[in-house]
Amino acid sequence: VRSIDWRDDRIVLIDQTALPHELRTVEVTTVDGLVDAIVRLAVRGAPALGAAGALGVLVAVRQARREGWDADTLHAAIDRVRAARPTAVNLAWGVDRARTRLAEGAEAVEREARAVLAEDAEANRAIGERGADLVAELVGDKDAPNLSLHTHCNSGGLATVEWGTALGIVRTLHERGRRIEVFVDETRPLLQGSRLTAWELADLGVPYRLVVDGAGPGLIARGLVDAVVVGADRIAGNGDVVNKVGTYPLALAAARAGVPFVVAAPESTIDRNTPTGDEIELDTRDADEVLGWAGVRTAPPDADALNIAFDLTPADLVTAIVTERRVVRPAAGEKPG
Amino acid sequence: VRSIDWRDDRIVLIDQTALPHELRTVEVTTVDGLVDAIVRLAVRGAPALGAAGALGVLVAVRQARREGWDADTLHAAIDRVRAARPTAVNLAWGVDRARTRLAEGAEAVEREARAVLAEDAEANRAIGERGADLVAELVGDKDAPNLSLHTHCNSGGLATVEWGTALGIVRTLHERGRRIEVFVDETRPLLQGSRLTAWELADLGVPYRLVVDGAGPGLIARGLVDAVVVGADRIAGNGDVVNKVGTYPLALAAARAGVPFVVAAPESTIDRNTPTGDEIELDTRDADEVLGWAGVRTAPPDADALNIAFDLTPADLVTAIVTERRVVRPAAGEKPG
Repeated sequence: VRSIDWRDDRIVLIDQTALPHELRTVEVTTVDGLVDAIVRLAVRGAPALGAAGALGVLVAVRQARREGWDADTLHAAIDRVRAARPTAVNLAWGVDRARTRLAEGAEAVEREARAVLAEDAEANRAIGERGADLVAELVGDKDAPNLSLHTHCNSGGLATVEWGTALGIVRTLHERGRRIEVFVDETRPLLQGSRLTAWELADLGVPYRLVVDGAGPGLIARGLVDAVVVGADRIAGNGDVVNKVGTYPLALAAARAGVPFVVAAPESTIDRNTPTGDEIELDTRDADEVLGWAGVRTAPPDADALNIAFDLTPADLVTAIVTERRVVRPAAGEKPG
Repeated sequence: VRSIDWRDDRIVLIDQTALPHELRTVEVTTVDGLVDAIVRLAVRGAPALGAAGALGVLVAVRQARREGWDADTLHAAIDRVRAARPTAVNLAWGVDRARTRLAEGAEAVEREARAVLAEDAEANRAIGERGADLVAELVGDKDAPNLSLHTHCNSGGLATVEWGTALGIVRTLHERGRRIEVFVDETRPLLQGSRLTAWELADLGVPYRLVVDGAGPGLIARGLVDAVVVGADRIAGNGDVVNKVGTYPLALAAARAGVPFVVAAPESTIDRNTPTGDEIELDTRDADEVLGWAGVRTAPPDADALNIAFDLTPADLVTAIVTERRVVRPAAGEKPG
């Protein structure tokens, strides 16, 4: 099952806010509905947002035809999709790719959007294969009974159209028969690790243990982790990586311990227009996400929070970036963009 | 109000599990009651546990007299208090200090326990004064309008008999009229930051913002933090620091950014029998604490978790340790033990 797809003239997506307790799908036929799904993270994950962006143009075209929008209204609607989550470059990339077909009509937009989805699925398989080879190479001792990997947030099938990026590497290693255990950060405030990555790994039959977000660096320092594998929301030209807040501490700990820190992402996550990570604005979200837990208020009544959603891992801490086409080694001075 | 005290022949302590929503006290008259309070973290924080240990001997002596225990039963009961939380050296220290008075009778034990409490209160004031001077010195620019500090877990009045260690430094700076903002990690899984530190800072009138545990290192890297101040559960002879899980990533980030990383603790937290942190066993707690919160399950039904409660910050990352007697600078090669 794809996390996001186009069926019966509408977007059908897995509502990731309902997992792991319920596997529920949402059908989207309007731009407002899609923007809402993106903002509340019903659909999330950089590659899945690329698909959402491309399909968003298609939804806008269909809605424009139904409701008689003029060209300005259509473009404004498409721009609202494009801006729904500024940090994730894939969303803008997906929008821009489908928008180039606008002049050719709805069918051309649909073909382009479908191509984005198909290419993402294919790219993820390729990342899985190349990443599995790379991790085996970096970890060295292939005869160790268990490979222990650490991951953050969710970079699995749910974060992509299917298969996954960093978690796709885990999946490929697992399907090759490698024995793996995965430490999964819960990933506050929205718990993508506890809810989504745990759900996917259980589904795949890969053993895993959840840990709080503060624990990973200590586990890495104690030699319990062979490699860290994470996805990315945006990669600057120099190899700086923006990913879910809490990624940077894992990179710091991995570098100190001499443990490989591997970033898996499609080429579309590499932002060649941004030379370094310092130019990337990091989204902040509603403070309430930090002040409570699943509807239970935990902080005092007047508490304030800074809910920064991403952090920046400098290129010198990134052992390797794996895409569907290549391996780039920023810590060794290579630049992806 | 003291977080833990001896009144009317019993221990009276603030139940820290009920905060910030309710300020409730618990009265303890039995060893079982005290062990339960320690295990469920109704009383917590290294210095407060030192007080709990000393008062635990007094409770045991009173209970032994009431129930006619022989000496072996009494010592076994005291040993149960001593072992209720192995990582925190202060608990054992407090027990051992009061136990030396056993042969002199209940009144001598009571005098010793009361002395432990009084000395802790006094030590914390001294740490606050010395730590406030140190932070002002380390941060340098005394004319900056706001001093931005980052802290983890709770090292305030609740974690001590009164005043606090790291948060005691914040309190002293605040009472000196320094304008401060504090970033407070929520501190999963038990949210001592969101619940306890937030409650204390609000009570003191010090502005603060909560952040998720993964966010601190990124804030430090972006120059938003002037100094990190934390407490400690145990300090090895070489200056390695064991503290609540999630402390080590802050130290890594601070070192990389050139931001001072300051540990505040009474001398009783320094374990001269442990040369380095590698010899310290780090408690693990019930996996359920990671799998949900406040009765709300967030992880999938069969999920497993590793709930490690502490991490180890190596001495070379510790700018300074402040005690009631001195400042030690482990990163510069000084050893506290």
